[in-house]
Amino acid sequence: MFHKAEMMDALADYESARYVIFGVPFDGTSSYRSGSRWAPDAMRKASENFETYNAYFDIDYEDLLIHDAGNLEHYVNVDETLEELSFAVEPIVADGKLPIMLGGEHSLTLPCVKACARHADEDIGFVVLDAHFDLREEYCGVKYNHACVSRHVLNEVTDKYVTIGVRSGPREEWAFAKENGIKYYTPDDVRETGTKEILSEISDYLGCSKIYLSLDMDALDPAYAPGLGTPEPFGLSDIEVRDIIHALAPRSVGFDIVEISPEYDNGQSALLGTKLLREFIAAHAASER
Amino acid sequence: MFHKAEMMDALADYESARYVIFGVPFDGTSSYRSGSRWAPDAMRKASENFETYNAYFDIDYEDLLIHDAGNLEHYVNVDETLEELSFAVEPIVADGKLPIMLGGEHSLTLPCVKACARHADEDIGFVVLDAHFDLREEYCGVKYNHACVSRHVLNEVTDKYVTIGVRSGPREEWAFAKENGIKYYTPDDVRETGTKEILSEISDYLGCSKIYLSLDMDALDPAYAPGLGTPEPFGLSDIEVRDIIHALAPRSVGFDIVEISPEYDNGQSALLGTKLLREFIAAHAASER
Amino acid sequence: MFHKAEMMDALADYESARYVIFGVPFDGTSSYRSGSRWAPDAMRKASENFETYNAYFDIDYEDLLIHDAGNLEHYVNVDETLEELSFAVEPIVADGKLPIMLGGEHSLTLPCVKACARHADEDIGFVVLDAHFDLREEYCGVKYNHACVSRHVLNEVTDKYVTIGVRSGPREEWAFAKENGIKYYTPDDVRETGTKEILSEISDYLGCSKIYLSLDMDALDPAYAPGLGTPEPFGLSDIEVRDIIHALAPRSVGFDIVEISPEYDNGQSALLGTKLLREFIAAHAASER
Amino acid sequence: MFHKAEMMDALADYESARYVIFGVPFDGTSSYRSGSRWAPDAMRKASENFETYNAYFDIDYEDLLIHDAGNLEHYVNVDETLEELSFAVEPIVADGKLPIMLGGEHSLTLPCVKACARHADEDIGFVVLDAHFDLREEYCGVKYNHACVSRHVLNEVTDKYVTIGVRSGPREEWAFAKENGIKYYTPDDVRETGTKEILSEISDYLGCSKIYLSLDMDALDPAYAPGLGTPEPFGLSDIEVRDIIHALAPRSVGFDIVEISPEYDNGQSALLGTKLLREFIAAHAASER
Amino acid sequence: MFHKAEMMDALADYESARYVIFGVPFDGTSSYRSGSRWAPDAMRKASENFETYNAYFDIDYEDLLIHDAGNLEHYVNVDETLEELSFAVEPIVADGKLPIMLGGEHSLTLPCVKACARHADEDIGFVVLDAHFDLREEYCGVKYNHACVSRHVLNEVTDKYVTIGVRSGPREEWAFAKENGIKYYTPDDVRETGTKEILSEISDYLGCSKIYLSLDMDALDPAYAPGLGTPEPFGLSDIEVRDIIHALAPRSVGFDIVEISPEYDNGQSALLGTKLLREFIAAHAASER
Amino acid sequence: MFHKAEMMDALADYESARYVIFGVPFDGTSSYRSGSRWAPDAMRKASENFETYNAYFDIDYEDLLIHDAGNLEHYVNVDETLEELSFAVEPIVADGKLPIMLGGEHSLTLPCVKACARHADEDIGFVVLDAHFDLREEYCGVKYNHACVSRHVLNEVTDKYVTIGVRSGPREEWAFAKENGIKYYTPDDVRETGTKEILSEISDYLGCSKIYLSLDMDALDPAYAPGLGTPEPFGLSDIEVRDIIHALAPRSVGFDIVEISPEYDNGQSALLGTKLLREFIAAHAASER
Ligand SMILES: [Mn+2]
Ligand SMILES: [Mn+2]
Ligand SMILES: [Mn+2]
Ligand SMILES: [Mn+2]
Ligand SMILES: [Mn+2]
Ligand SMILES: [Mn+2]
Ligand SMILES: [Mn+2]
Ligand SMILES: [Mn+2]
Ligand SMILES: [Mn+2]
Ligand SMILES: [Mn+2]
Ligand SMILES: [Mn+2]
Ligand SMILES: [Mn+2]
Repeated sequence: MFHKAEMMDALADYESARYVIFGVPFDGTSSYRSGSRWAPDAMRKASENFETYNAYFDIDYEDLLIHDAGNLEHYVNVDETLEELSFAVEPIVADGKLPIMLGGEHSLTLPCVKACARHADEDIGFVVLDAHFDLREEYCGVKYNHACVSRHVLNEVTDKYVTIGVRSGPREEWAFAKENGIKYYTPDDVRETGTKEILSEISDYLGCSKIYLSLDMDALDPAYAPGLGTPEPFGLSDIEVRDIIHALAPRSVGFDIVEISPEYDNGQSALLGTKLLREFIAAHAASER
Repeated sequence: MFHKAEMMDALADYESARYVIFGVPFDGTSSYRSGSRWAPDAMRKASENFETYNAYFDIDYEDLLIHDAGNLEHYVNVDETLEELSFAVEPIVADGKLPIMLGGEHSLTLPCVKACARHADEDIGFVVLDAHFDLREEYCGVKYNHACVSRHVLNEVTDKYVTIGVRSGPREEWAFAKENGIKYYTPDDVRETGTKEILSEISDYLGCSKIYLSLDMDALDPAYAPGLGTPEPFGLSDIEVRDIIHALAPRSVGFDIVEISPEYDNGQSALLGTKLLREFIAAHAASER
Repeated sequence: MFHKAEMMDALADYESARYVIFGVPFDGTSSYRSGSRWAPDAMRKASENFETYNAYFDIDYEDLLIHDAGNLEHYVNVDETLEELSFAVEPIVADGKLPIMLGGEHSLTLPCVKACARHADEDIGFVVLDAHFDLREEYCGVKYNHACVSRHVLNEVTDKYVTIGVRSGPREEWAFAKENGIKYYTPDDVRETGTKEILSEISDYLGCSKIYLSLDMDALDPAYAPGLGTPEPFGLSDIEVRDIIHALAPRSVGFDIVEISPEYDNGQSALLGTKLLREFIAAHAASER
Repeated sequence: MFHKAEMMDALADYESARYVIFGVPFDGTSSYRSGSRWAPDAMRKASENFETYNAYFDIDYEDLLIHDAGNLEHYVNVDETLEELSFAVEPIVADGKLPIMLGGEHSLTLPCVKACARHADEDIGFVVLDAHFDLREEYCGVKYNHACVSRHVLNEVTDKYVTIGVRSGPREEWAFAKENGIKYYTPDDVRETGTKEILSEISDYLGCSKIYLSLDMDALDPAYAPGLGTPEPFGLSDIEVRDIIHALAPRSVGFDIVEISPEYDNGQSALLGTKLLREFIAAHAASER
Repeated sequence: MFHKAEMMDALADYESARYVIFGVPFDGTSSYRSGSRWAPDAMRKASENFETYNAYFDIDYEDLLIHDAGNLEHYVNVDETLEELSFAVEPIVADGKLPIMLGGEHSLTLPCVKACARHADEDIGFVVLDAHFDLREEYCGVKYNHACVSRHVLNEVTDKYVTIGVRSGPREEWAFAKENGIKYYTPDDVRETGTKEILSEISDYLGCSKIYLSLDMDALDPAYAPGLGTPEPFGLSDIEVRDIIHALAPRSVGFDIVEISPEYDNGQSALLGTKLLREFIAAHAASER
Repeated sequence: MFHKAEMMDALADYESARYVIFGVPFDGTSSYRSGSRWAPDAMRKASENFETYNAYFDIDYEDLLIHDAGNLEHYVNVDETLEELSFAVEPIVADGKLPIMLGGEHSLTLPCVKACARHADEDIGFVVLDAHFDLREEYCGVKYNHACVSRHVLNEVTDKYVTIGVRSGPREEWAFAKENGIKYYTPDDVRETGTKEILSEISDYLGCSKIYLSLDMDALDPAYAPGLGTPEPFGLSDIEVRDIIHALAPRSVGFDIVEISPEYDNGQSALLGTKLLREFIAAHAASER
């Protein structure tokens, strides 16, 4: 009769859950516009807009085992927050569940990737959709800045790394990417080569059966997602991102959506992010049928 | 010297009019975000932005016989509102004019379709652009809910029915659509098959010379129309919808644009809706030259 | 480690709770601007802004037994919604808890008053803060319209009725109020007579030890609460409303805050409403010490 | 059945009208924020929020003879706009009706005052509520700038001039005001002396039975009216302005409300302006009973 | 340690500068929505969002000689403003620098084109991206209206004129364009023919080595740039405009971006405009390497 | 001819300046809503709204020696930012100028107070207007959190401390305040005792001729300043704050305005903050005449 403000269709309790969604309302290192702290709750609100059924995969979300764990207590300091997040995500992965983190900023991805890598029976890859390389060693005096997450994944977790949608970074990052043979696709690459071909290339390149998938919403063009921390024109379309998620979800052992700043639009970015979250879950669940 | 806040270029009085525009500021059954009650006046304001001339059809709207009848008195209850609307639209159609209804919500379409069907000399078809099937028998305890309009048209008016842009609905609606051989095109279908080919298919399928055309603005992708009651990602582009309207307007005996919620953007959806309204009128008028 | 999006400091489970807060996201009969459906969740978000301690009453909310039950499932139709609400609030009162309803629109007050009246060991009074009389028998064809709630309380529950802040109504309501000797105070009355004197008059007038207290936020001046369904200038100040709540909370057996439309400001009205909710609880709890 | 987007309760046709309301959507000389072009239609929308009855004066607006003439065609250039306005307002006054102009910017007041002065059988006074002196001879290279309106009224119409709420101006304006013995009241004066006493002083000072009353909404504190072209803190309260209007309306032969910029709030300023418009009409009509 | 609110990476002083950016916060002839007065500062704020490096051209903006001169003092009257602008831009061009004007409205382009034409050693062409022809002789009683800029360039500067993105204008403008053999491309032309082919046609058509390039942001579809004075659906995509700028920048002797109204979105249009400004500079600088 | 986006009337260069204004766009420890990073530039924009003349003090700001130094480069980490700020403010005070800091968050006050104290020839007092005590030793794991600034001033600078407008804090802060005999005035105290009487008490209590004055804008009621990080109802009025600043400015050796979050209103809070800044300067300058 009464219901809580949870992600719609997240009807499972923790124990029975296959998918555990949780929010981390932390945006402490945001450099341009902050406010991704409000994204997890905005996405829960957005989820009320959608039907429970996904026709493409013929899946009803109510039939899946989805749990919404709520939001993580957050700190002012990024290091403490990452540590707290690390403690929180570890048991979720250990319990054999697929963690879905709703940021908050991109720095939050690192502990989630690490937890997934630790519990995988083989090396996992890391595929990130992002307008930015996030390859800095540190930024504005902070190592675990949102602008450095990919570098830390490379350094600390895996070098099976692909980034899609990238179109912004200092000269050093582009040089680093080239010198280290990092696999990246700009939105122009995606438009010219086609999603299908790129996905096939990525599959060959990674050579692993399991990945962690991270969606920095600024990978999308601001026409589709104007409410972002660092919006970057000339981005991916909603369809391109959807098709990439459809293809990669089946092999994903963890997923996140980060960098939505809901105060900068009228729900558009949270709605699209939530829809993409649902596409991820349906695509993954379909692969386990 | 003074002018009223009417739709621009609606210079005709009722008697001489070929096109009668009217608003119905009713959104009483809206399920996610309400506010389409403000759409008719927002569209009148938006109309001040546009030139009187349509170059594609070489038509000046000031040369057409367009009347803006104002807004319908509305009720809290949907049943009474539909009845009132039925009384209002009936004489417009009886007088041989083409009614153009500006919602308000999609439930308002039904009395308009019925009036047009009653006065047609043959069976009319119903073509709707919508993200949603709207095929429920009832929703949230209300039969004439905005989420049921297509079902009622099917039940009460015509089975010459096509829906374009559909991408959302419960399992039951997709099953109903398949079981009943309902003709529908998702935005992916439109992208892959092309507007032209689809329009030719629709023409063959309907096999009738007259249709009622209903534009639920959520058929469009939220990038083009963010101010909606139930925005649904992965939608049609502005160009696709324009081309469909261009093709279908000539055979239309009634038209409506519904589900714009102008409080959720900065005029974008009302501007596009108003532009599409003008494209409809020009396309129709060109066919009568 | 994780926490849900509940009202802050609502740490008790239902069984142990003294105060049970719940939202009813229903605004189906709203006549001017809708959107109070978003108020309960907006107030939960606003609650994160406040300290757990109330210095005036020397009370820490974390020490009180407050439960947040979540939001009521809602219908499109007001009658069904009121029935559902009636079922929901009944056991709360029966269990000896003080119900605190967060609207949603003012019509939702009636089932709450009725439940409280049914379980009181004596006749209860009804004190409402409102810009409007809400004394119509019906409005826009709907009996249980938000604009009629006071009339139905008078007809169906109690004639120990006082309204504070009233400044708007049709001639019939003012006539009805005068003919029936209804006790009302305009904001001008409050400013001229003073809150203290008026509260003493009310106490004498009611002659009962228990009341239900209802706060229609439009009692406040729009300077303090711009995000409302039907904002009415020349209203009460925040301090006047706070002082009235401080005085009346101790004898209240039920409470509600209604008619906040959070889409029409940047959090101001939800923040003030939430603060007044907290003042109510502290004042009531202090009286039970 | 259908109704136009006019000021609510403006039910009279022009011929029978006692009060003729019209908008002038012109803001071409606005210096800080523009947008008062949208105010007339915003006030019509706001008028839907209010009851038809004014209890203070026991008057139902539907019983009065109010006509809404619509909006004046506007030009880019202020001089042409003022000329057009002059042509438009002249016959209204000549026909013995009370003109009520909704700006647009303050420069629009001048032709209205002139028309009223021309048709008065005695010298009229000019009382203006404004945060600014508007006593410049010209501003930014434009004589009939919004920042000069009072000077032109003084020069071209009447020296029976009082300004209330003034708190901003260059040194020259304050010096001019003092040297020329101009009667002005700052908001501090109003707070300290009291509305009643000031109104009595003004009455003595003017020594005339008829005035034109002009309300620049920035006379009010931005807490009450945030949506303004040039908001100025430390202003008048809503109650002070209401009481001044109540007192001066009976002797007014013309009235205007200017400088609302509705894009800069969520309806607050248009709602208050519309309410004050209604208070003016009720107070004036009560005096003619 | 302290830095001023200038365009990011505009590190050069005037003397050493190759590119001189300046704003003209003037929108006095805007016909639908005003507010482009706020665009120059909004673009400076937006510039903080972007990296200093452009990977496509392998250029770091910090290595270029860019100067931000600030904003021009503005007048109410367009004629005086254009005169002031003429005085301001003349020495910039005379000093051999490339002027980049940030409007403000489109009328401001004329003095900039004239200054560039005066100092060119050959006839220059004029290429404008715009939804509108801007070919009127005068508009709303004002010759140098924003809606007339192209006509005045044609009349007073050069007939080597091309407009891209045009889709709106009165019958007279379309007729004028056809009768005078004006080269124009609608967005449909661009989509059907392709950017590359069109650019090659333009190059042949103009037959000159130097052009002035003007970007009226309403050339873009409102999905990409919703914050505009006169938004027009069915426009160019961000990629199309970027590619056109890339191609034309090398031969440009002057550039402007006009008609952004930042109050009508959440930074989207200013961000895209600023990005396109940066693409222009990089493309031009790359051609001078 | 061109002018930079500086605080209006800040015409002096650094060397000649008596008042040095600078912004610190840092909000890294904000706990509820962030965004005070945008306040310094928002206040510069707001300053364009105001006349150069202050009639109350008969002072023209253009005659004063005011310098706007721009914004401090900021870090992600509060400790580094405070250190950077310390380096920046030190020479300003050493050079005998009065520093005026525009936050950013309240933690930024500490280095400014310290610099002023270091260079004063006697012990200085600290008077802060704030809704919050800010007396925590640390908050959310961060010592120099915005919620701790008063405690650090007490610990590290001076115990001549008074806070006005305080109405929120955990039990520990109220206890600490009482146990340590801290002088505080709630808004209720101010209303009941009167500004004049309180200011006289403060003067006696402090017993020093020089103070640092800090204005946390949340001291004001949200009706006057809705755009805040942590808005707290029941606050001070604009007039109360103005009168306190008038009285304390003459003895102030440093001043700041912090915690405005301009994204949460339409300019209201930045406009009022800027006005109060100007009142401070005029009151101080008048005392030096
Ligand atoms: Mn990232
Ligand atoms: Mn990114
Ligand atoms: Mn529909
Ligand atoms: Mn739909
Ligand atoms: Mn009510
Ligand atoms: Mn009410
Ligand atoms: Mn004025
Ligand atoms: Mn003014
Ligand atoms: Mn143009
Ligand atoms: Mn244009
Ligand atoms: Mn503070
Ligand atoms: Mn504070």
